[in-house]
Amino acid sequence: MEATRIDLEQNDIPTHWYNVVADMKNPPAPPLGPDGQPVAPERMLAIFPGAILEQEMSAERWIPIPQEVREIYRLWRPSPLVRAVRLEQALGTPAKIFYKFEGCSPAGSHKPNSAVPQAFYNKQAGIKRLTTETGAGQWGSSIAFAGQMFGLPVRVYMVNVSYQQKPFRRSMMQTWGAEVYASPSQLTQTGRDALAKDPNNPGSLGLAISEAVEEAAGRPDTNYTLGSVLNHVLLHQTIIGLEAKKQFDKIGLYPDVILGPCGGGSSFGGIAFPFLADQAAGEKRAEKLRCVAVEPTSCPTLTQGAYAYDYGDASGFTPLMKMYTLGHDFMPPGIHAGGLRYHGDSPLVSQLFHEGRVEAVAVPQLATFEAGTLFAKAEGVIPAPESCHAIRAAIDEALKCKATGEPKVILFNLTGHGHFDMAAYDRYFAGELDDYAYPREAVEASLQHLPQVG
Amino acid sequence: MEATRIDLEQNDIPTHWYNVVADMKNPPAPPLGPDGQPVAPERMLAIFPGAILEQEMSAERWIPIPQEVREIYRLWRPSPLVRAVRLEQALGTPAKIFYKFEGCSPAGSHKPNSAVPQAFYNKQAGIKRLTTETGAGQWGSSIAFAGQMFGLPVRVYMVNVSYQQKPFRRSMMQTWGAEVYASPSQLTQTGRDALAKDPNNPGSLGLAISEAVEEAAGRPDTNYTLGSVLNHVLLHQTIIGLEAKKQFDKIGLYPDVILGPCGGGSSFGGIAFPFLADQAAGEKRAEKLRCVAVEPTSCPTLTQGAYAYDYGDASGFTPLMKMYTLGHDFMPPGIHAGGLRYHGDSPLVSQLFHEGRVEAVAVPQLATFEAGTLFAKAEGVIPAPESCHAIRAAIDEALKCKATGEPKVILFNLTGHGHFDMAAYDRYFAGELDDYAYPREAVEASLQHLPQVG
Repeated sequence: MEATRIDLEQNDIPTHWYNVVADMKNPPAPPLGPDGQPVAPERMLAIFPGAILEQEMSAERWIPIPQEVREIYRLWRPSPLVRAVRLEQALGTPAKIFYKFEGCSPAGSHKPNSAVPQAFYNKQAGIKRLTTETGAGQWGSSIAFAGQMFGLPVRVYMVNVSYQQKPFRRSMMQTWGAEVYASPSQLTQTGRDALAKDPNNPGSLGLAISEAVEEAAGRPDTNYTLGSVLNHVLLHQTIIGLEAKKQFDKIGLYPDVILGPCGGGSSFGGIAFPFLADQAAGEKRAEKLRCVAVEPTSCPTLTQGAYAYDYGDASGFTPLMKMYTLGHDFMPPGIHAGGLRYHGDSPLVSQLFHEGRVEAVAVPQLATFEAGTLFAKAEGVIPAPESCHAIRAAIDEALKCKATGEPKVILFNLTGHGHFDMAAYDRYFAGELDDYAYPREAVEASLQHLPQVG
Repeated sequence: MEATRIDLEQNDIPTHWYNVVADMKNPPAPPLGPDGQPVAPERMLAIFPGAILEQEMSAERWIPIPQEVREIYRLWRPSPLVRAVRLEQALGTPAKIFYKFEGCSPAGSHKPNSAVPQAFYNKQAGIKRLTTETGAGQWGSSIAFAGQMFGLPVRVYMVNVSYQQKPFRRSMMQTWGAEVYASPSQLTQTGRDALAKDPNNPGSLGLAISEAVEEAAGRPDTNYTLGSVLNHVLLHQTIIGLEAKKQFDKIGLYPDVILGPCGGGSSFGGIAFPFLADQAAGEKRAEKLRCVAVEPTSCPTLTQGAYAYDYGDASGFTPLMKMYTLGHDFMPPGIHAGGLRYHGDSPLVSQLFHEGRVEAVAVPQLATFEAGTLFAKAEGVIPAPESCHAIRAAIDEALKCKATGEPKVILFNLTGHGHFDMAAYDRYFAGELDDYAYPREAVEASLQHLPQVG
């Protein structure tokens, strides 16, 4: 029986994360304050520990993974690299399709890869509590898990409408001991102001971010954590691609195309960046490698956005970041891949895209669920809606190979299982889902509101 | 870093299942028909394929696993054996605690281990469709998955109240292409009769079984499948214990105590039986091994039931089986471990218990959720309520070791993740759960109704 799952031993868990900044043509554009000047690092120390800030600004190629973090990683890592033989057969493609499966983590997604080191560095810095925001709850549950691993209490501000409608992720956070509050809440000035205007405020990710940051900024014992977009988050997620490289080495293959779903950028960057290192080093095997970020047509940041300085949140609370953006007040349609509904993108992914080192493609919602269902029927695993985006693009690549006869090696990031997302599949089967094509007028309108800087 | 996860290669997937009948002191008591005579095998051929019936009655020690089944098993098998180091530390026990993790299967539990061969043998026999019943949906989703793997359409009769209240398992079955109907339905005479009496009939497992069997018995192209209790189901589940033995061999250890949740018996039998083979063979390392079935105090079949012939279902539709039973009309309280709410038990587990080869213990609901939450906080994985029963007993064993100083090796079956059961955790945290101690009067009443045979 030919092996279709390539496992690594726990001692093969990488000892260093890979920092793509070391291999970029230009240094990253710095975050700017409201005055248009680069944000002083010390200002960020109110909400982040020093070790995280160092990583955020580092240009070192390899950054050591603390032993304490590797010991938690081994609760579910190394994650398997799987060859989707039955999917290949169903498509009749000569391509070899591989997926890196991140769905067996305690939280069911790739998010704990960064939550664990963030909790560790905060604990090490003497911080006593963590805050964060969460929408559907994927990041909130990951940081709840990670905080528990290091004995750090976690408070999660969960967007009110999700808090009411999605109680299961909330119960998951509580199982790991986190406090979960509907946002806006009475716990912060931001929350109280919002509730004073509207006691039934449904909340928003922007509001929840503001509450979590306000609490962290106001309490010296408390720090803030973020699940995507920032450099240190993408750094931690490179554990995915670094393991995948070892797994391909084991079977003597190398990918021709790498695909990751792309919202804030952490799952795409996590799987793709370590392979970009081979390209930067001039390795022959990586010459023709293509890395493709896959985004929804309804929130087409890289494929339709502007490359400009913009706020990270809807309310203009965060520093300005140079990134592809649809405008910070662009409100994406309500697709089920909640993790991909972000108006901007990681500054690192954005710059690499701008420099032509990575590609991007946008796929419509119905086609992603069609792909996810086909995948489940072939391979068993029911994927999260975010992961379905990468699967759609992988299937499209495999079908191109079928047309041309090329036996390409395709790798995609299966970022999480869909067991918390069955309501979305339900609506898909009932014919209730919409494609939400490129919302051109809304994007054009919000791009008029980009802050004038730089 | 000492390894805490023991993996096997795909080629290590066992080539044979282990049949405990070969090592039992007495031959199993045969199933009886309504006339008190052993059921003729040909009568069962209306709903089962010959290969399954042969397994049901076989006394061969080793039964080959078809290559086609091993090829599907490898989508998630071998499953990991994990040492729960952080749980050991949290308890301060000198014991070594290991768990076999079945939660990474496509359906999230151990049930596909039998669903896959059942679908295969039916396909091989030329059967075109499968039926089954399901309560909360764990078995229904596993057979939906397995049917899809072999291109067999599956129809699932889902207890009406679960169909309405638990839509996510239903969506899961539909993702794998199964038809799911609320039971009672208009599709069978049983269903139509029930609906004629009460159009809002909430349904029951007994009714759903009757509908699934009626359809299979009435259509030559259609067979019936069952997820626990019967000998062939326990046979298939021995893949769990067989892998675990190889994994312990790899690290030079052997368990002193093995614990599995026990409802119909397939998860307990699956992990324990292969180790009983070592005892039967007189292996020294197995001399002191204890295998303990863990059941709920609210449905204490082995610990409080009678060893007698009884019906397998509530309505007296099935043959009579010799087993520990609380009486076929005993209705267990509504605990959240739905998989353990069965009035009887596997005839094989029952006979081994009767012969003193395995032990049993009953644990109350609140203590199981306490154990599951402690486990999640230590090890990350959130366990299904059924699995929490084994965890409770494992923790109790480890605490005994703490008192005595014995460094025992404890193994338990972590049969599934709890991501579909967060509502149960929610109710536990809200203080809404009950312990439902031994329902003595109800059991005594139902034991009065045991059929008079044998």
